[in-house]
Amino acid sequence: MGAAQTSPEGLGAASPIDRHAFSVLAVTRRRNGHTQDQAGHIMDIPVAISARHVHLRQDTVERLFGPGYQLHARTPLSQPGQYSAVETVTLVGPHGRLEHVRVLGPPRVADQVEISRSDEIHLGLDGPVRLSGDLAGTPGIELEGPFGRVSLSQGVVCAARHIHMSPQDAQAFGVRDRDVVDVAIGGTGRDVVFGDVVIRVAPNSQLELHLDTDEGNAAGVHPGMTGYVVARNRE
Amino acid sequence: MGAAQTSPEGLGAASPIDRHAFSVLAVTRRRNGHTQDQAGHIMDIPVAISARHVHLRQDTVERLFGPGYQLHARTPLSQPGQYSAVETVTLVGPHGRLEHVRVLGPPRVADQVEISRSDEIHLGLDGPVRLSGDLAGTPGIELEGPFGRVSLSQGVVCAARHIHMSPQDAQAFGVRDRDVVDVAIGGTGRDVVFGDVVIRVAPNSQLELHLDTDEGNAAGVHPGMTGYVVARNRE
Repeated sequence: MGAAQTSPEGLGAASPIDRHAFSVLAVTRRRNGHTQDQAGHIMDIPVAISARHVHLRQDTVERLFGPGYQLHARTPLSQPGQYSAVETVTLVGPHGRLEHVRVLGPPRVADQVEISRSDEIHLGLDGPVRLSGDLAGTPGIELEGPFGRVSLSQGVVCAARHIHMSPQDAQAFGVRDRDVVDVAIGGTGRDVVFGDVVIRVAPNSQLELHLDTDEGNAAGVHPGMTGYVVARNRE
Repeated sequence: MGAAQTSPEGLGAASPIDRHAFSVLAVTRRRNGHTQDQAGHIMDIPVAISARHVHLRQDTVERLFGPGYQLHARTPLSQPGQYSAVETVTLVGPHGRLEHVRVLGPPRVADQVEISRSDEIHLGLDGPVRLSGDLAGTPGIELEGPFGRVSLSQGVVCAARHIHMSPQDAQAFGVRDRDVVDVAIGGTGRDVVFGDVVIRVAPNSQLELHLDTDEGNAAGVHPGMTGYVVARNRE
Protein backbone atom coordinates (compact mmCIF):
# COMPACT_ATOMS: atom_id res chain seq x y z
CA MET A 1 0.00 0.00 0.00
CA GLY A 2 2.44 2.62 -1.14
CA ALA A 3 5.23 1.82 1.30
CA ALA A 4 7.77 3.07 -1.21
CA GLN A 5 5.92 6.35 -1.45
CA THR A 6 6.01 6.88 2.25
CA SER A 7 9.53 5.91 3.21
CA PRO A 8 10.47 7.99 6.25
CA GLU A 9 13.82 9.03 4.87
CA GLY A 10 16.28 10.29 7.39
CA LEU A 11 14.54 8.97 10.46
CA GLY A 12 16.90 6.94 12.60
CA ALA A 13 15.84 3.67 14.16
CA ALA A 14 15.53 5.21 17.61
CA SER A 15 13.46 8.17 16.48
CA PRO A 16 10.45 8.67 18.72
CA ILE A 17 8.43 10.05 15.82
CA ASP A 18 5.68 7.73 14.64
CA ARG A 19 6.99 6.32 11.38
CA HIS A 20 3.67 4.98 10.22
CA ALA A 21 2.10 8.38 10.34
CA PHE A 22 4.82 9.99 8.28
CA SER A 23 3.00 9.83 5.05
CA VAL A 24 -0.28 11.63 5.02
CA LEU A 25 0.75 15.10 4.08
CA ALA A 26 3.75 13.88 2.13
CA VAL A 27 1.49 11.75 -0.03
CA THR A 28 -0.85 14.68 -0.50
CA ARG A 29 2.00 16.85 -1.65
CA ARG A 30 3.06 14.27 -4.21
CA ARG A 31 -0.36 14.04 -5.79
CA ASN A 32 -0.62 16.49 -8.60
CA GLY A 33 -3.95 17.09 -10.20
CA HIS A 34 -6.73 14.62 -9.70
CA THR A 35 -6.86 11.51 -7.61
CA GLN A 36 -8.75 8.72 -9.37
CA ASP A 37 -10.35 5.51 -8.23
CA GLN A 38 -9.77 2.21 -9.98
CA ALA A 39 -12.53 2.94 -12.49
CA GLY A 40 -10.89 6.25 -13.38
CA HIS A 41 -13.36 8.47 -11.55
CA ILE A 42 -12.00 11.72 -10.22
CA MET A 43 -11.85 11.50 -6.43
CA ASP A 44 -10.68 14.98 -5.56
CA ILE A 45 -13.16 17.13 -3.72
CA PRO A 46 -13.63 20.81 -4.52
CA VAL A 47 -13.19 22.94 -1.41
CA ALA A 48 -15.57 25.80 -0.63
CA ILE A 49 -15.27 28.29 2.21
CA SER A 50 -18.55 29.27 3.84
CA ALA A 51 -18.32 32.85 5.02
CA ARG A 52 -20.61 33.87 7.89
CA HIS A 53 -24.24 33.78 6.84
CA VAL A 54 -27.80 33.36 8.08
CA HIS A 55 -30.77 31.26 7.03
CA LEU A 56 -34.12 32.86 7.92
CA ARG A 57 -37.76 31.85 8.29
CA GLN A 58 -40.11 33.80 6.02
CA ASP A 59 -41.69 35.50 9.02
CA THR A 60 -38.23 36.55 10.24
CA VAL A 61 -37.50 37.98 6.78
CA GLU A 62 -40.65 40.08 7.08
CA ARG A 63 -39.84 41.29 10.60
CA LEU A 64 -36.37 42.37 9.41
CA PHE A 65 -37.19 43.70 5.93
CA GLY A 66 -40.91 44.57 6.05
CA PRO A 67 -44.37 42.97 5.68
CA GLY A 68 -44.68 40.70 2.66
CA TYR A 69 -40.99 41.09 1.86
CA GLN A 70 -39.42 38.45 -0.41
CA LEU A 71 -35.67 37.72 -0.59
CA HIS A 72 -33.96 38.59 -3.86
CA ALA A 73 -31.61 35.96 -5.30
CA ARG A 74 -28.16 37.38 -6.03
CA THR A 75 -25.95 34.38 -6.88
CA PRO A 76 -26.84 30.69 -7.14
CA LEU A 77 -24.88 28.48 -4.72
CA SER A 78 -23.36 25.18 -5.71
CA GLN A 79 -26.07 23.19 -3.92
CA PRO A 80 -29.18 23.06 -6.15
CA GLY A 81 -31.89 25.62 -5.39
CA GLN A 82 -29.83 27.52 -2.82
CA TYR A 83 -28.83 31.12 -3.39
CA SER A 84 -26.97 34.00 -1.86
CA ALA A 85 -29.52 36.81 -1.41
CA VAL A 86 -29.12 40.51 -2.08
CA GLU A 87 -30.15 41.09 1.53
CA THR A 88 -27.78 41.30 4.50
CA VAL A 89 -28.34 41.67 8.24
CA THR A 90 -26.32 42.85 11.22
CA LEU A 91 -25.50 40.38 14.01
CA VAL A 92 -25.51 41.91 17.48
CA GLY A 93 -23.87 39.89 20.24
CA PRO A 94 -23.10 40.66 23.87
CA HIS A 95 -19.64 42.05 23.02
CA GLY A 96 -19.70 43.11 19.40
CA ARG A 97 -21.47 43.56 16.09
CA LEU A 98 -20.93 42.13 12.61
CA GLU A 99 -22.49 44.07 9.74
CA HIS A 100 -23.28 43.04 6.15
CA VAL A 101 -23.83 39.39 6.99
CA ARG A 102 -25.24 37.62 3.96
CA VAL A 103 -28.70 36.05 3.97
CA LEU A 104 -28.95 32.76 2.08
CA GLY A 105 -32.20 31.64 0.50
CA PRO A 106 -34.73 30.27 0.10
CA PRO A 107 -36.29 30.79 3.57
CA ARG A 108 -36.18 27.78 5.89
CA VAL A 109 -38.27 26.37 8.71
CA ALA A 110 -35.81 27.59 11.34
CA ASP A 111 -33.56 30.63 11.70
CA GLN A 112 -29.89 29.66 11.75
CA VAL A 113 -26.78 31.82 12.12
CA GLU A 114 -23.59 30.15 10.86
CA ILE A 115 -20.44 31.89 11.98
CA SER A 116 -16.83 31.01 12.66
CA ARG A 117 -15.31 30.65 16.10
CA SER A 118 -13.41 33.91 15.41
CA ASP A 119 -16.79 35.58 14.81
CA GLU A 120 -18.17 34.06 18.01
CA ILE A 121 -15.29 35.47 20.02
CA HIS A 122 -15.81 38.90 18.42
CA LEU A 123 -19.54 38.80 19.21
CA GLY A 124 -19.10 37.33 22.70
CA LEU A 125 -21.00 34.10 22.01
CA ASP A 126 -20.20 30.44 22.57
CA GLY A 127 -22.09 28.52 19.90
CA PRO A 128 -21.26 24.83 19.48
CA VAL A 129 -19.88 23.04 16.42
CA ARG A 130 -23.00 21.52 14.85
CA LEU A 131 -24.40 20.18 11.64
CA SER A 132 -26.91 22.43 9.93
CA GLY A 133 -30.37 22.10 11.47
CA ASP A 134 -29.17 20.69 14.80
CA LEU A 135 -30.05 23.75 16.87
CA ALA A 136 -31.24 22.45 20.26
CA GLY A 137 -29.44 24.26 23.07
CA THR A 138 -27.60 26.70 20.81
CA PRO A 139 -27.31 30.36 21.85
CA GLY A 140 -29.57 33.09 20.54
CA ILE A 141 -28.57 36.43 19.03
CA GLU A 142 -30.04 39.75 17.91
CA LEU A 143 -30.53 40.37 14.19
CA GLU A 144 -30.94 43.85 12.75
CA GLY A 145 -32.48 44.58 9.36
CA PRO A 146 -33.51 47.80 7.64
CA PHE A 147 -37.12 47.43 8.86
CA GLY A 148 -36.79 45.84 12.27
CA ARG A 149 -34.90 43.88 14.85
CA VAL A 150 -35.41 40.24 15.83
CA SER A 151 -34.17 38.50 18.94
CA LEU A 152 -33.55 34.82 18.26
CA SER A 153 -33.75 32.54 21.27
CA GLN A 154 -31.44 29.99 19.61
CA GLY A 155 -29.78 29.26 16.29
CA VAL A 156 -26.11 30.27 16.49
CA VAL A 157 -23.77 27.51 15.38
CA CYS A 158 -20.24 27.02 14.19
CA ALA A 159 -20.87 24.74 11.20
CA ALA A 160 -19.31 21.29 11.45
CA ARG A 161 -17.09 20.73 8.42
CA HIS A 162 -18.81 18.46 5.95
CA ILE A 163 -18.82 17.10 2.43
CA HIS A 164 -21.93 17.35 0.30
CA MET A 165 -22.26 14.49 -2.13
CA SER A 166 -24.82 12.59 -4.19
CA PRO A 167 -25.67 8.91 -3.59
CA GLN A 168 -23.54 8.12 -6.66
CA ASP A 169 -20.55 9.95 -5.16
CA ALA A 170 -21.09 8.15 -1.85
CA GLN A 171 -20.91 4.83 -3.63
CA ALA A 172 -17.72 5.84 -5.45
CA PHE A 173 -16.08 6.96 -2.21
CA GLY A 174 -17.35 3.95 -0.27
CA VAL A 175 -19.04 6.08 2.38
CA ARG A 176 -22.53 6.58 3.80
CA ASP A 177 -24.48 9.59 5.02
CA ARG A 178 -23.13 10.74 8.44
CA ASP A 179 -19.85 8.87 8.04
CA VAL A 180 -16.88 10.82 9.33
CA VAL A 181 -13.74 11.09 7.22
CA ASP A 182 -10.36 12.79 7.23
CA VAL A 183 -9.60 15.14 4.34
CA ALA A 184 -6.14 16.36 3.33
CA ILE A 185 -5.47 19.70 1.68
CA GLY A 186 -1.90 20.14 0.52
CA GLY A 187 0.43 22.41 -1.36
CA THR A 188 -0.67 25.63 0.31
CA GLY A 189 2.25 26.22 2.66
CA ARG A 190 -0.28 25.55 5.42
CA ASP A 191 -1.03 21.91 4.71
CA VAL A 192 -3.70 20.34 6.88
CA VAL A 193 -5.50 17.07 7.37
CA PHE A 194 -8.95 17.80 8.73
CA GLY A 195 -10.53 15.09 10.83
CA ASP A 196 -14.17 15.04 11.88
CA VAL A 197 -15.47 15.82 8.39
CA VAL A 198 -19.08 14.63 8.13
CA ILE A 199 -20.46 13.10 4.94
CA ARG A 200 -23.85 14.53 3.89
CA VAL A 201 -25.52 12.51 1.15
CA ALA A 202 -28.53 13.91 -0.71
CA PRO A 203 -29.94 13.54 -4.20
CA ASN A 204 -28.49 16.05 -6.67
CA SER A 205 -25.93 17.36 -4.16
CA GLN A 206 -22.85 18.83 -5.75
CA LEU A 207 -19.61 17.24 -4.48
CA GLU A 208 -18.00 19.86 -2.24
CA LEU A 209 -16.13 20.13 1.06
CA HIS A 210 -17.49 23.00 3.15
CA LEU A 211 -15.11 24.66 5.59
CA ASP A 212 -15.67 27.79 7.64
CA THR A 213 -13.34 30.76 7.32
CA ASP A 214 -11.16 29.76 10.29
CA GLU A 215 -10.64 26.35 8.76
CA GLY A 216 -10.03 27.72 5.27
CA ASN A 217 -7.52 30.22 6.63
CA ALA A 218 -5.75 27.60 8.75
CA ALA A 219 -5.26 25.52 5.60
CA GLY A 220 -4.34 28.44 3.32
CA VAL A 221 -7.19 27.54 0.98
CA HIS A 222 -7.65 29.60 -2.16
CA PRO A 223 -10.42 29.46 -4.79
CA GLY A 224 -10.45 26.40 -7.01
CA MET A 225 -8.57 24.14 -4.61
CA THR A 226 -9.38 20.51 -4.04
CA GLY A 227 -8.86 18.20 -1.10
CA TYR A 228 -8.98 14.46 -0.96
CA VAL A 229 -10.30 11.90 1.48
CA VAL A 230 -7.48 10.08 3.25
CA ALA A 231 -9.35 8.02 5.79
CA ARG A 232 -12.77 6.90 6.85
CA ASN A 233 -13.60 6.48 10.52
CA ARG A 234 -16.54 4.54 11.87
CA GLU A 235 -16.29 4.50 15.61
CA MET B 1 5.14 -0.26 12.35
CA GLY B 2 1.85 -0.29 14.21
CA ALA B 3 -0.09 -2.14 11.51
CA ALA B 4 -2.42 -3.65 14.07
CA GLN B 5 -3.23 -0.23 15.44
CA THR B 6 -4.23 1.13 12.10
CA SER B 7 -6.34 -1.60 10.57
CA PRO B 8 -8.74 0.09 8.18
CA GLU B 9 -11.79 -1.80 9.40
CA GLY B 10 -14.69 -1.91 7.05
CA LEU B 11 -12.80 -0.79 3.98
CA GLY B 12 -13.34 -3.18 1.11
CA ALA B 13 -10.49 -4.24 -1.14
CA ALA B 14 -11.63 -1.96 -3.93
CA SER B 15 -11.95 1.12 -1.75
CA PRO B 16 -10.29 4.12 -3.33
CA ILE B 17 -9.44 5.53 0.07
CA ASP B 18 -5.74 5.45 0.86
CA ARG B 19 -5.40 2.71 3.47
CA HIS B 20 -1.95 3.70 4.58
CA ALA B 21 -3.12 7.12 5.51
CA PHE B 22 -5.96 5.84 7.63
CA SER B 23 -4.11 6.02 10.85
CA VAL B 24 -2.95 9.46 11.79
CA LEU B 25 -5.96 10.89 13.52
CA ALA B 26 -7.15 7.50 14.68
CA VAL B 27 -3.83 6.92 16.40
CA THR B 28 -4.03 10.35 17.94
CA ARG B 29 -7.46 9.61 19.33
CA ARG B 30 -6.22 6.40 20.91
CA ARG B 31 -3.39 8.08 22.75
CA ASN B 32 -4.55 9.16 26.15
CA GLY B 33 -2.33 11.36 28.23
CA HIS B 34 1.31 11.67 27.37
CA THR B 35 3.30 10.24 24.52
CA GLN B 36 6.74 9.10 25.63
CA ASP B 37 9.92 8.32 23.79
CA GLN B 38 11.93 5.17 24.46
CA ALA B 39 13.74 6.81 27.36
CA GLY B 40 10.43 7.72 28.96
CA HIS B 41 10.53 11.42 28.15
CA ILE B 42 7.20 13.09 27.64
CA MET B 43 6.83 13.92 23.95
CA ASP B 44 3.54 15.79 23.96
CA ILE B 45 3.72 19.44 23.06
CA PRO B 46 1.70 22.05 24.91
CA VAL B 47 -0.39 24.10 22.50
CA ALA B 48 -0.63 27.88 22.78
CA ILE B 49 -2.83 30.19 20.75
CA SER B 50 -1.26 33.51 19.81
CA ALA B 51 -3.96 36.14 19.64
CA ARG B 52 -3.25 39.16 17.44
CA HIS B 53 -0.39 41.25 18.83
CA VAL B 54 2.37 43.68 17.93
CA HIS B 55 6.07 43.91 18.68
CA LEU B 56 7.37 47.48 18.64
CA ARG B 57 10.68 49.31 18.41
CA GLN B 58 11.37 51.61 21.38
CA ASP B 59 11.06 54.70 19.15
CA THR B 60 7.69 53.43 17.89
CA VAL B 61 6.58 52.96 21.51
CA GLU B 62 7.45 56.61 22.15
CA ARG B 63 5.67 57.87 19.04
CA LEU B 64 2.52 55.97 20.08
CA PHE B 65 2.60 56.47 23.85
CA GLY B 66 4.74 59.59 24.39
CA PRO B 67 8.40 60.68 24.69
CA GLY B 68 10.47 58.49 26.99
CA TYR B 69 7.58 56.07 27.45
CA GLN B 70 8.41 52.58 28.72
CA LEU B 71 6.17 49.53 28.27
CA HIS B 72 4.69 48.08 31.45
CA ALA B 73 4.86 44.30 31.83
CA ARG B 74 1.46 42.77 32.55
CA THR B 75 1.92 38.99 32.27
CA PRO B 76 5.05 36.96 31.60
CA LEU B 77 4.84 34.81 28.47
CA SER B 78 6.04 31.22 28.31
CA GLN B 79 9.18 32.17 26.36
CA PRO B 80 11.80 33.52 28.82
CA GLY B 81 11.98 37.32 29.10
CA GLN B 82 8.93 37.96 26.94
CA TYR B 83 5.85 39.63 28.38
CA SER B 84 2.40 40.79 27.49
CA ALA B 85 2.34 44.56 28.13
CA VAL B 86 -0.35 46.67 29.74
CA GLU B 87 -0.37 48.76 26.56
CA THR B 88 -2.56 48.15 23.53
CA VAL B 89 -2.80 49.82 20.11
CA THR B 90 -5.39 50.11 17.37
CA LEU B 91 -4.65 48.62 13.95
CA VAL B 92 -6.04 50.64 11.04
CA GLY B 93 -6.19 48.91 7.67
CA PRO B 94 -7.67 49.95 4.33
CA HIS B 95 -11.05 48.36 5.14
CA GLY B 96 -11.32 48.11 8.91
CA ARG B 97 -9.96 48.69 12.39
CA LEU B 98 -9.03 46.39 15.25
CA GLU B 99 -8.87 47.96 18.68
CA HIS B 100 -7.21 46.82 21.92
CA VAL B 101 -4.46 44.87 20.17
CA ARG B 102 -1.91 43.75 22.74
CA VAL B 103 1.68 44.99 22.68
CA LEU B 104 4.26 42.35 23.59
CA GLY B 105 7.56 43.31 25.17
CA PRO B 106 10.37 43.95 25.45
CA PRO B 107 10.82 46.30 22.46
CA ARG B 108 12.50 44.78 19.39
CA VAL B 109 14.68 45.99 16.54
CA ALA B 110 11.75 45.92 14.09
CA ASP B 111 8.04 46.63 14.34
CA GLN B 112 5.98 43.51 13.63
CA VAL B 113 2.21 43.04 13.54
CA GLU B 114 1.11 39.40 13.91
CA ILE B 115 -2.50 38.82 12.95
CA SER B 116 -4.63 35.99 11.68
CA ARG B 117 -5.87 35.67 8.14
CA SER B 118 -9.37 36.46 9.47
CA ASP B 119 -7.93 39.70 10.87
CA GLU B 120 -6.26 40.48 7.55
CA ILE B 121 -9.54 40.07 5.71
CA HIS B 122 -11.28 42.35 8.23
CA LEU B 123 -8.54 45.00 7.86
CA GLY B 124 -8.27 44.64 4.09
CA LEU B 125 -4.64 43.48 4.06
CA ASP B 126 -2.86 40.58 2.41
CA GLY B 127 0.11 39.77 4.64
CA PRO B 128 2.02 36.55 3.95
CA VAL B 129 2.53 33.56 6.23
CA ARG B 130 6.01 34.16 7.65
CA LEU B 131 8.28 33.28 10.51
CA SER B 132 8.80 36.04 13.04
CA GLY B 133 11.42 38.53 11.85
CA ASP B 134 11.11 37.69 8.14
CA LEU B 135 9.50 40.95 7.12
CA ALA B 136 10.87 41.78 3.65
CA GLY B 137 8.04 42.59 1.26
CA THR B 138 5.30 42.44 3.89
CA PRO B 139 2.52 45.05 3.88
CA GLY B 140 2.52 48.09 6.12
CA ILE B 141 -0.28 49.31 8.40
CA GLU B 142 -1.30 52.28 10.54
CA LEU B 143 -0.96 52.01 14.32
CA GLU B 144 -2.83 54.31 16.70
CA GLY B 145 -1.81 54.90 20.30
CA PRO B 146 -3.01 57.34 22.94
CA PHE B 147 -0.22 59.83 22.07
CA GLY B 148 0.22 59.46 18.33
CA ARG B 149 -0.14 57.55 15.14
CA VAL B 150 2.56 55.64 13.25
CA SER B 151 2.47 54.47 9.66
CA LEU B 152 4.54 51.32 9.24
CA SER B 153 5.88 50.71 5.73
CA GLN B 154 6.06 46.96 6.37
CA GLY B 155 5.68 44.42 9.16
CA VAL B 156 2.27 42.73 8.84
CA VAL B 157 2.52 38.95 8.90
CA CYS B 158 0.38 35.94 9.50
CA ALA B 159 2.68 33.97 11.79
CA ALA B 160 3.81 30.60 10.43
CA ARG B 161 2.87 27.91 12.93
CA HIS B 162 5.93 26.80 14.86
CA ILE B 163 7.24 24.90 17.84
CA HIS B 164 9.59 26.56 20.28
CA MET B 165 12.01 24.13 21.85
CA SER B 166 15.38 23.96 23.58
CA PRO B 167 18.40 22.17 22.07
CA GLN B 168 17.68 19.35 24.55
CA ASP B 169 14.10 19.03 23.28
CA ALA B 170 15.34 19.06 19.68
CA GLN B 171 17.63 16.14 20.45
CA ALA B 172 14.79 14.23 22.12
CA PHE B 173 12.49 14.80 19.14
CA GLY B 174 15.24 14.09 16.59
CA VAL B 175 14.79 17.43 14.85
CA ARG B 176 16.87 20.50 14.02
CA ASP B 177 16.15 24.22 13.91
CA ARG B 178 14.02 25.07 10.83
CA ASP B 179 12.90 21.47 10.31
CA VAL B 180 9.28 21.19 9.28
CA VAL B 181 7.02 18.68 11.02
CA ASP B 182 3.39 17.59 11.11
CA VAL B 183 1.58 17.91 14.43
CA ALA B 184 -1.68 16.15 15.35
CA ILE B 185 -4.22 17.56 17.77
CA GLY B 186 -7.01 15.16 18.60
CA GLY B 187 -10.03 14.65 20.78
CA THR B 188 -11.55 18.06 20.21
CA GLY B 189 -14.37 17.17 17.82
CA ARG B 190 -12.36 19.15 15.26
CA ASP B 191 -9.30 16.94 15.01
CA VAL B 192 -6.52 18.25 12.80
CA VAL B 193 -3.05 17.34 11.62
CA PHE B 194 -1.16 20.54 10.91
CA GLY B 195 1.58 20.30 8.30
CA ASP B 196 4.18 23.00 7.72
CA VAL B 197 4.99 23.42 11.41
CA VAL B 198 8.46 24.94 11.74
CA ILE B 199 10.85 23.93 14.52
CA ARG B 200 12.49 26.88 16.29
CA VAL B 201 15.36 25.85 18.53
CA ALA B 202 16.84 28.33 21.01
CA PRO B 203 18.52 28.02 24.41
CA ASN B 204 16.03 28.11 27.28
CA SER B 205 13.01 28.00 24.98
CA GLN B 206 9.92 26.51 26.55
CA LEU B 207 8.48 23.60 24.54
CA GLU B 208 5.30 24.96 22.95
CA LEU B 209 3.38 24.81 19.67
CA HIS B 210 2.23 28.28 18.62
CA LEU B 211 -0.90 28.51 16.49
CA ASP B 212 -2.79 31.61 15.47
CA THR B 213 -6.46 32.02 16.33
CA ASP B 214 -7.72 30.69 12.98
CA GLU B 215 -5.64 27.56 13.44
CA GLY B 216 -6.63 27.14 17.09
CA ASN B 217 -10.30 27.55 16.19
CA ALA B 218 -10.07 25.16 13.25
CA ALA B 219 -8.69 22.52 15.64
CA GLY B 220 -11.08 23.29 18.52
CA VAL B 221 -8.12 23.92 20.81
CA HIS B 222 -8.83 24.78 24.42
CA PRO B 223 -6.43 25.79 27.20
CA GLY B 224 -4.12 23.09 28.49
CA MET B 225 -4.25 20.94 25.37
CA THR B 226 -1.30 19.15 23.87
CA GLY B 227 -0.43 18.01 20.38
CA TYR B 228 2.13 15.56 19.20
CA VAL B 229 4.55 15.33 16.34
CA VAL B 230 3.49 12.68 13.85
CA ALA B 231 5.97 13.22 11.07
CA ARG B 232 9.13 15.03 10.12
CA ASN B 233 9.61 16.31 6.59
CA ARG B 234 12.93 17.27 5.09
CA GLU B 235 12.34 18.13 1.49
